[in-house]
Amino acid sequence: MPAAALDATALRILLDGDTRLVREHVRAVLARPEFRKPDQPLPTEEYRERVSEWTRELASTGGPALLFPAEFGGLGRVGDAIAAFETLGHSDLSLLVKCGVQFGLFGGAVHHLGTRGHHERYLERIASFELPGCFAMSESGHGSDVQHVQTTATYDPASGEFVVVTPADEDRKDYIGNAALDGRLAAVFCQLVVGGERRGVHCVLVPLRDDEGEPLPGIRIADCGHKLGLNGVDNGRIWFDDVRVPRENLLDRYARVSADGVYFSPIENEDRRFFTMLGTLIQGRISVGGAAISATKNALTIAIRHGLRRRQFGPPGSDAEVPLLDYRVHQRRLLPPLARTYALHFAQRGVVAELGRIFGADDGTAERSEAEDTARRELETRAAGLKALATWHATETIQACREACGGAGYLSENRLGELKADTDVFTTFEGDNTILLQLVAKSLLTGYRDEFGELNAIATAGFVASQVWETVVERTAARELIQRLTDDLIPGSERDEDLLDREYHLGLLRWREEHVLSGAARRLKRGIDAGGEPFAVFNDSQDHVLAVARAHTERELLDAFDGAARACEEPTLASLLGKLCDLHALAEIERDRAWFQEHGRISSTRAKMVTRAVNDLCAELRPQAGALVDAFGIPDEVLAAPIGRPGGEASRTAAAELGDELPDVRSVLREAGNEVAR
Amino acid sequence: MPAAALDATALRILLDGDTRLVREHVRAVLARPEFRKPDQPLPTEEYRERVSEWTRELASTGGPALLFPAEFGGLGRVGDAIAAFETLGHSDLSLLVKCGVQFGLFGGAVHHLGTRGHHERYLERIASFELPGCFAMSESGHGSDVQHVQTTATYDPASGEFVVVTPADEDRKDYIGNAALDGRLAAVFCQLVVGGERRGVHCVLVPLRDDEGEPLPGIRIADCGHKLGLNGVDNGRIWFDDVRVPRENLLDRYARVSADGVYFSPIENEDRRFFTMLGTLIQGRISVGGAAISATKNALTIAIRHGLRRRQFGPPGSDAEVPLLDYRVHQRRLLPPLARTYALHFAQRGVVAELGRIFGADDGTAERSEAEDTARRELETRAAGLKALATWHATETIQACREACGGAGYLSENRLGELKADTDVFTTFEGDNTILLQLVAKSLLTGYRDEFGELNAIATAGFVASQVWETVVERTAARELIQRLTDDLIPGSERDEDLLDREYHLGLLRWREEHVLSGAARRLKRGIDAGGEPFAVFNDSQDHVLAVARAHTERELLDAFDGAARACEEPTLASLLGKLCDLHALAEIERDRAWFQEHGRISSTRAKMVTRAVNDLCAELRPQAGALVDAFGIPDEVLAAPIGRPGGEASRTAAAELGDELPDVRSVLREAGNEVAR
Repeated sequence: MPAAALDATALRILLDGDTRLVREHVRAVLARPEFRKPDQPLPTEEYRERVSEWTRELASTGGPALLFPAEFGGLGRVGDAIAAFETLGHSDLSLLVKCGVQFGLFGGAVHHLGTRGHHERYLERIASFELPGCFAMSESGHGSDVQHVQTTATYDPASGEFVVVTPADEDRKDYIGNAALDGRLAAVFCQLVVGGERRGVHCVLVPLRDDEGEPLPGIRIADCGHKLGLNGVDNGRIWFDDVRVPRENLLDRYARVSADGVYFSPIENEDRRFFTMLGTLIQGRISVGGAAISATKNALTIAIRHGLRRRQFGPPGSDAEVPLLDYRVHQRRLLPPLARTYALHFAQRGVVAELGRIFGADDGTAERSEAEDTARRELETRAAGLKALATWHATETIQACREACGGAGYLSENRLGELKADTDVFTTFEGDNTILLQLVAKSLLTGYRDEFGELNAIATAGFVASQVWETVVERTAARELIQRLTDDLIPGSERDEDLLDREYHLGLLRWREEHVLSGAARRLKRGIDAGGEPFAVFNDSQDHVLAVARAHTERELLDAFDGAARACEEPTLASLLGKLCDLHALAEIERDRAWFQEHGRISSTRAKMVTRAVNDLCAELRPQAGALVDAFGIPDEVLAAPIGRPGGEASRTAAAELGDELPDVRSVLREAGNEVAR
Repeated sequence: MPAAALDATALRILLDGDTRLVREHVRAVLARPEFRKPDQPLPTEEYRERVSEWTRELASTGGPALLFPAEFGGLGRVGDAIAAFETLGHSDLSLLVKCGVQFGLFGGAVHHLGTRGHHERYLERIASFELPGCFAMSESGHGSDVQHVQTTATYDPASGEFVVVTPADEDRKDYIGNAALDGRLAAVFCQLVVGGERRGVHCVLVPLRDDEGEPLPGIRIADCGHKLGLNGVDNGRIWFDDVRVPRENLLDRYARVSADGVYFSPIENEDRRFFTMLGTLIQGRISVGGAAISATKNALTIAIRHGLRRRQFGPPGSDAEVPLLDYRVHQRRLLPPLARTYALHFAQRGVVAELGRIFGADDGTAERSEAEDTARRELETRAAGLKALATWHATETIQACREACGGAGYLSENRLGELKADTDVFTTFEGDNTILLQLVAKSLLTGYRDEFGELNAIATAGFVASQVWETVVERTAARELIQRLTDDLIPGSERDEDLLDREYHLGLLRWREEHVLSGAARRLKRGIDAGGEPFAVFNDSQDHVLAVARAHTERELLDAFDGAARACEEPTLASLLGKLCDLHALAEIERDRAWFQEHGRISSTRAKMVTRAVNDLCAELRPQAGALVDAFGIPDEVLAAPIGRPGGEASRTAAAELGDELPDVRSVLREAGNEVAR
């Protein structure tokens, strides 16, 4: 089998991109003996302790500081912070989630919803893990419906305090990371009541435990108990029984309450305020998507290396057995997901860069230009779609990898079980994927109008009935569009199009996106016009609405991969990435080829050619499979799976390049000549 | 929402069928406090002990005795035995696998490969778990390729013993249940060498441990360590260093060795002997398929009850929130898999009945009529296909159920994590699914010819080149068939066909089966005729070959469900089963609608209608969803998931009907007037 030599290191550098320095730093830290994973799963209590220790050590390397502004002890490099978090996603995922809760969610709430006083008081201690905290948003009764959380914070002007209350048992905060054991302070999302008036969801800081770790008066905490995975994270439930906190504990960037109980917000519309506040927490969603991609890379690295080494059966009459990865079915299982993982990597990189651009320019006030507002909304939509696709991809791919490794894949030492279990909830937390896709669809259907209101997906149907709807339908210009699309469809000329032409791939995905979008818009309108009850109309189209979001995000994904492949200047790498992008594009077209046929966009003959092309690309890329996973740059110590050891020379061990002490990211950046604040 | 009253009890009785008595017995046993599941996962050591204890207690209720002949202390009711095992699949799956290893695999090897002396000596002690044993087949180096195991048993005529040897480290027996802790005796699959000549794979009994549980001389055992799931089972690795066992330890139904070292087998052809021996172990594969279906039922029961109770969001302006199962996407996630689970249930019942028929008539000799031989091969093919589809369905469906339950589904107390983890290896053990499907395809492609030889999938390609091939192609009469199929295709008349006509569904699946089969046959032949290297030709068609097996098994599945629905005489149930069967059929047609369009069998308009029909059927069946899972008859104590508690009155608790002591299945059968041996 001819294998053009491919330089995995060059490819790794390309994948790492602008954030290379930080990624290498985190790899080096995680490869050190302090972070070695235990050979057997630890008992829950011990595991939680270990994870807290790891979190403290990681904090000492300065990673979390990347997230926060320089004037409060941080480094102000959010893009690098996410890259560091993504790299952490190759290691223990309880550690990842613990860090995500502490620095990203809890720290992010204080940072983005709070003002100077909060920053001065808390950020440095949050970044060092001196002050462990919780992000108390979800409630048992309203997991996905944040706008309807029931916890209340009622302002008492007599004492100048908020009184925080859990009204009914099902309104308890649930699944809250850091709550069962470590958390001292919680950012609690609750309905603010001032002067008897409800002001919608706001965030109030509520102390949970005293210095000895005992729950404070009025705070009841229960352990969520054992979970399917992530048992190093101490998830818990919290009830508030008339807990009083000072007025200053309201995170007041977007709304203030004066001492005498006057409410003021620079954003008048309650829905808009809610979504503005929620929007600032976008980094959590982006981080989960990135972590899912990292975990997927681990699984693929293990399964592909195993598939290259493990031999089974062989031609009759011959003693030579064949590596698993030479079998077409095995290639089919692993290589299209590998290509898609690359696509997700590049799409994620784009989202992170945009996050860095927007939040780098954040001035900490509630004021925002219309252009910035639009940019933020677009980023939210991109991030929501990408998170959904990346986490579903993780679940599917890690499962495929487990099966591809057979019995060996079932042993804990080979890590696939842990990867499966730990990532499984990624499709649910930081926004349930189905809800997220509805969010994406809604933005598309309403053309990013300000008025689009609640996160509540059902509201879309009501919204559909409003006048805005006409605008939408005009915007997508449904009838004309369909006409144009039909004209465009000339199956006779299909034979002339090159199946490996990127423009052809992009054209198909763009066509699908527009077609599904205008179709869904018309369907909703038809239902409402016919006098349908909005909920029934929406529910009747729910699958169609989700298809809108998928088609849109898939097109974005291909755009991102295509852009990265085109931008590559080194010819060997460029050609490889091009092929991998072809495989990704054609595998997606193949997956949905029923739809393309149903809508007359590709012929049945063409559809069969697509399947053959995917087979051929798999065979063509097979000799590069090893290098393609080596380029993910996961140190052996971090991968820590016996069947995932590299075939040839050992993976580079970044740890060896370092001294005895945990390196600080500040000095790493400084040495490299990067400007470091403070 | 109008809900025709459906009698879940009547439906349960229908599902239980002939094996109702035994199923109710096992339900009652498992619902008892002795078998209560721990609230938190136990540490591995403790869990293993608990499972061994449970196994002993279960053995005392007489269940395992169902498997074995009456003259050796058994009850000789293999169909009931499998039904009992399937019911056990609702409970702890480590217990299930422990029982499967001890009674089904180890006991089955002694029973089916041994003769009278072995039966007298061992069966009763195996059925009581007094003699825990291993089924030592898989080796590290040859997981799926049993015919090439490397362990040898060489006859030494001087001492009248076999010398059992593990030649190289990778030839160690691996993933062997009962090996790490409990096993005293192992049924070891090894290459028999007599008089210097290799005689192929045979099974020899090798004692592993002494009465104190210490490994005997020459036996090295290592623990496989922690696994993704099933940690109540003590899997281990075994090495044999010149272990001597007496000549009688050869399980000699199909081959004997005389004291002076003369080998004799009534089956001359080595391949045929191997497959005959392996064929007798079919019950293991059937049992795993059945257990996968049971576990799937647990997950669906939990997720559907949760979906009926849990409310999220609601029409704007209204406080009423909507049960999750009212959302189309939620229905789509759960109801087609529910329908498919019914299909698998009925297909499984058919396979078990056939197993009972064939093995009930087994006379214990090696002689067999040609008709019996054919029946056994057909059963092997059916069982292989069904096991693959049932276990993949379990993996997918349990995952879908976990996601459908959101955060609650991630808590261990709700059992979905355990179900996921424990069943995950079902797709791998008792035959890796991909290998099994190749086996199915091979039987179909070769028309069940005796000569088809090795389990080695690659051999098919070599075989293709032989003259037999022509016969095959003639048998499927490819060209004429295609002609007929093309004539049959009249897209114009499509509109006249009723989308809910069962004949239409069956016609589509039959058409697909024949078309894929003849296509694969021609493709292989074309490759060979063009001078292709057999391995390359086969690999190039591997996806096509697997499609043959899938199409065949899917058609069988629908046939089974259709048959059961037709056989139902009670009108309400019959109508319900009919609709559920429609949903199953149309969901499968929808899943593969790209293929049907590619092959001109359904039009694009028709394909879209199929999707709509699936949506409509989901909505129509939604009011019955609760009853449809109640009918699985899983006692609450066994389901043991807080979110899986029934909506209305508590599920019937069979345990309440029993006295203080564990009931014996013998007395249950006797009381019911069933004939009981002994």
